[in-house]
Amino acid sequence: MNALFDILTVRMDYDHKVLVIIDQTQLPGKEVYLELRTPEEIWEAIYLLKVRGAPAIGIAVAYGLALCAERIQGEDFGTFFRQFTMLKNYLAGSRPTAVNLFTALERLEKCVLAHRQEPLEKIKQELWREAEAIRKEDAAACRRIGEWGLSLLQPGMGILTHCNAGHLAVSEYGTALAPIYLGQEKGYHFIVYADETRPLLQGARLTAYELQKAGVDVTLLCDNMASRLMAEGKIQAVLVGCDRVAANGDTANKIGTSGVAILANYYRIPFYVLGPTSTIDATCPDQNSITIEERPAEEVTEKWYAHRMAPRGIKVYNPAFDVTDHRLITAIVTEQGIFYPPFDFSRL
Amino acid sequence: MNALFDILTVRMDYDHKVLVIIDQTQLPGKEVYLELRTPEEIWEAIYLLKVRGAPAIGIAVAYGLALCAERIQGEDFGTFFRQFTMLKNYLAGSRPTAVNLFTALERLEKCVLAHRQEPLEKIKQELWREAEAIRKEDAAACRRIGEWGLSLLQPGMGILTHCNAGHLAVSEYGTALAPIYLGQEKGYHFIVYADETRPLLQGARLTAYELQKAGVDVTLLCDNMASRLMAEGKIQAVLVGCDRVAANGDTANKIGTSGVAILANYYRIPFYVLGPTSTIDATCPDQNSITIEERPAEEVTEKWYAHRMAPRGIKVYNPAFDVTDHRLITAIVTEQGIFYPPFDFSRL
Repeated sequence: MNALFDILTVRMDYDHKVLVIIDQTQLPGKEVYLELRTPEEIWEAIYLLKVRGAPAIGIAVAYGLALCAERIQGEDFGTFFRQFTMLKNYLAGSRPTAVNLFTALERLEKCVLAHRQEPLEKIKQELWREAEAIRKEDAAACRRIGEWGLSLLQPGMGILTHCNAGHLAVSEYGTALAPIYLGQEKGYHFIVYADETRPLLQGARLTAYELQKAGVDVTLLCDNMASRLMAEGKIQAVLVGCDRVAANGDTANKIGTSGVAILANYYRIPFYVLGPTSTIDATCPDQNSITIEERPAEEVTEKWYAHRMAPRGIKVYNPAFDVTDHRLITAIVTEQGIFYPPFDFSRL
Repeated sequence: MNALFDILTVRMDYDHKVLVIIDQTQLPGKEVYLELRTPEEIWEAIYLLKVRGAPAIGIAVAYGLALCAERIQGEDFGTFFRQFTMLKNYLAGSRPTAVNLFTALERLEKCVLAHRQEPLEKIKQELWREAEAIRKEDAAACRRIGEWGLSLLQPGMGILTHCNAGHLAVSEYGTALAPIYLGQEKGYHFIVYADETRPLLQGARLTAYELQKAGVDVTLLCDNMASRLMAEGKIQAVLVGCDRVAANGDTANKIGTSGVAILANYYRIPFYVLGPTSTIDATCPDQNSITIEERPAEEVTEKWYAHRMAPRGIKVYNPAFDVTDHRLITAIVTEQGIFYPPFDFSRL
């Protein structure tokens, strides 16, 4: 484990045979590590967003399924595989929209089938190996994203980020925050600004928290303060993650991202999107094919507050994501390299 | 009183000789009207932002001083004026940056001096007359701003506003909201969107509240959602108030205003600033002469919340205002007419 990261988003404790996660719903107030053993505990931790961020969910569920599979009783493969499939389907229902969750579960299933002729003990070992592979591949991709991203930055730069695409969402380095962590290791002194990211406050609760823990110089601001910050000349680059990149480069990400891109464009500040190539969706031509999820009003009017902060019965507009037009994006940074406009992902 | 406005921001109850204000610190959860009688009660209501918005403060303090002056004992002018001046200076200390507060107090002092040869009872009557004049002039200016503003709009338009420049801040019609209220009277159906306006949430607490009370179709959004809303084609005009307009048209207003202006510019949506000509500061050439107040960190990390929402010790960037470049402003709407670029206020 990297010395920068004393927060462990997801960790398999092999000595005690427990999956350990930090409960993200209690951050930043309390650092509570949860020990998960049963399928029900793992399901609930994902369902209740105690572990969040698509890649982190993928890693947690891979470890979780390997852990549960190890305890399957019986001697023959048929019995094992029936129980394994039940566990897999049960865990798949924890968060039906997280793609990485399904990808991870399918990799483990393929692993079982590939080793079906071997003893069950061997299959169980292979499942652990596959789960470790998922975590290591994710960490390696993030590190490469960080290296490519760092090549775009200079020591001392002011950097703005939105939402949380750090190691709480992904693995060690994260995506948008990977160049910042790599720079931190190399002694670059980045001056990082984190948008609080209303309404769920991932910037205030998670990004500010994980950067501060890693010793990065980080300052929190409200989302509506970014224009003033840029006008003061404090920002030289914007780094954001992505939930889905269309074939033309249009990028869906946390609500507010497109606004930051427009501001960056106005103030002539480079705007970089960072994410693994698995986020690029070749089947999606452009933003018109991306549906935006609308979330409940209470996230805006009540959540987190001591008292309700808007009149009863008020209508609320609460989309969870927006789409940044590809013309506003300076570059898209992946583990396979940097893409510049006009975006062409056909070599992937 | 206009039927649209059953909230009374500041009202003088002559029957019971009390100044009545709605306690804005308790909105929107509780509609508590406070009856103010003593200089201390009036001072505290202003100091604690129970009444806020520069013009509303001006009206409250004018009524308040007239009320306190009426109770001054003594027969000769010298005794009266000494006590009047003490009261005036005491109330002036309640909120040292609100210009309208000083303007109102000075108008009352001039009124006393203009009538110094007359009986004290007559002077006290003249103070009431002057306080009423301040309220009526403010209401008339707002109404004219509303009429000019309404001439720029069409029925059915989607309108975005930021912060609170309605009757809770000013008087009956407010400034930025004046065209909306006038349109409501005329049966226009505007579809209004109110930015919640972090960190103090004036949009969620006050704008959403007062528009809803007046029967206006209003929807609340987080500040970072405005870009998505505009991208969906839901906004045809942006209306904002102003705290200070420089001679070249650069406009200081609540933090986040300049970001909204940049978005409006990008999406080719008209961006209108509305305010009385008293807000135009001819001595201030441009934005470089405007100092921006930085506010305490706890407004961002703790205020309103059930629990702290950011890690302890985090640095916070919290400017109260920003400046919108005059090149982003479609027009500045005052009670004396509409100003278009290049802005030239020399005829005022």
